[in-house]
Amino acid sequence: MVDDVRATGSPRARPGRWRTGEESRRRILAAARTSFARLGYDRATVRHIAANARVDPSMVYYFFATKSRLFAAAMALPVDPAERVAALLDGGVDDLGPRIVEHFLSVWDDTGGFEPMFGLMRSPPADERSAGTLREFVQREIVGQLRRVIGGEDAQLRAELAGAHLMGLALARYIVAIEPLASAAPETVAAWVGPVLQHYFTGPTPGSG
Amino acid sequence: MVDDVRATGSPRARPGRWRTGEESRRRILAAARTSFARLGYDRATVRHIAANARVDPSMVYYFFATKSRLFAAAMALPVDPAERVAALLDGGVDDLGPRIVEHFLSVWDDTGGFEPMFGLMRSPPADERSAGTLREFVQREIVGQLRRVIGGEDAQLRAELAGAHLMGLALARYIVAIEPLASAAPETVAAWVGPVLQHYFTGPTPGSG
Repeated sequence: MVDDVRATGSPRARPGRWRTGEESRRRILAAARTSFARLGYDRATVRHIAANARVDPSMVYYFFATKSRLFAAAMALPVDPAERVAALLDGGVDDLGPRIVEHFLSVWDDTGGFEPMFGLMRSPPADERSAGTLREFVQREIVGQLRRVIGGEDAQLRAELAGAHLMGLALARYIVAIEPLASAAPETVAAWVGPVLQHYFTGPTPGSG
Repeated sequence: MVDDVRATGSPRARPGRWRTGEESRRRILAAARTSFARLGYDRATVRHIAANARVDPSMVYYFFATKSRLFAAAMALPVDPAERVAALLDGGVDDLGPRIVEHFLSVWDDTGGFEPMFGLMRSPPADERSAGTLREFVQREIVGQLRRVIGGEDAQLRAELAGAHLMGLALARYIVAIEPLASAAPETVAAWVGPVLQHYFTGPTPGSG
């Protein structure tokens, strides 16, 4: 594959030399990491990242299709969480809790999971900006989708309580690795946590009846 | 307060000068941080920490009473989580879920909370030892207490699922600070999460009936 000729303005490009697609892809990822870290998820537009990488925005879409997939690749996540949530939501909300837990555990167990996301969770003031980037990504790409499917006034809070539980599960099982939770069968963990997430998605609001 | 004369072997002590209690306390805390980081929570004994601080072990107990309180002080936690759990468990297990959530939220809201503990949760391999120290502290001082009160074969897993949920709640509400969860009234959050923790403590084991 041959790079866009406009990219030869790069200081590293030599006259008469075409960058390969792999080189462009690496430049885009490096620019994305810098832009997301400096500007957060929302303000780091694809146009801005493309300019920093000295490529045309269409090349960013060619390689990564969506901004969330670019973010996932820049963070070295094994999958794009936003895409996975979208796929799970295609199955409706009725047994979303169990399905989401099972999927979440299988991604972690198979791939080492979303550990890089936890690198963004440094406590402020140590790295306030990274937490902001993560917050914007989760809010825009994950909570937003869930909220629309859950519906109702407290849909966003419900989605966030479920997400908070999953984050804590990942911390305890995979990062702190506390036993017996770390070694429990995925089915055992899912049998406990799935109905709890389902309660957050579709259970009655506390005090409502 | 006047220091133990044996501590004057310190390279910083000048002949004829007695260290103040505050100096000894600082030396103990510094030694504790080093020992916990190098050896983990279990292997960093009070005797070992006292030797590193060049004080008598009795002085460690004089200042900190228990190893868990020393750990909390060394980590700059606002309270010793192990003591708080012990106090909450005095009220029995029947409404432990709501009480533990309310207390947890009030400590975070009032003091900035347990953020330093999250500093220990760096993903391996970045800082495997810190995660190990946290794991040992949580396992020995917190899960151990809960397990005895919950009882039954899966008591430890139940305690860890509840703890995982609380950890995730703290991450989402205080560190990532996602809205509306970050600004929700403590009573609203407790009304959602309290019954879930109670379910983990005393609800039926999944598939058991």
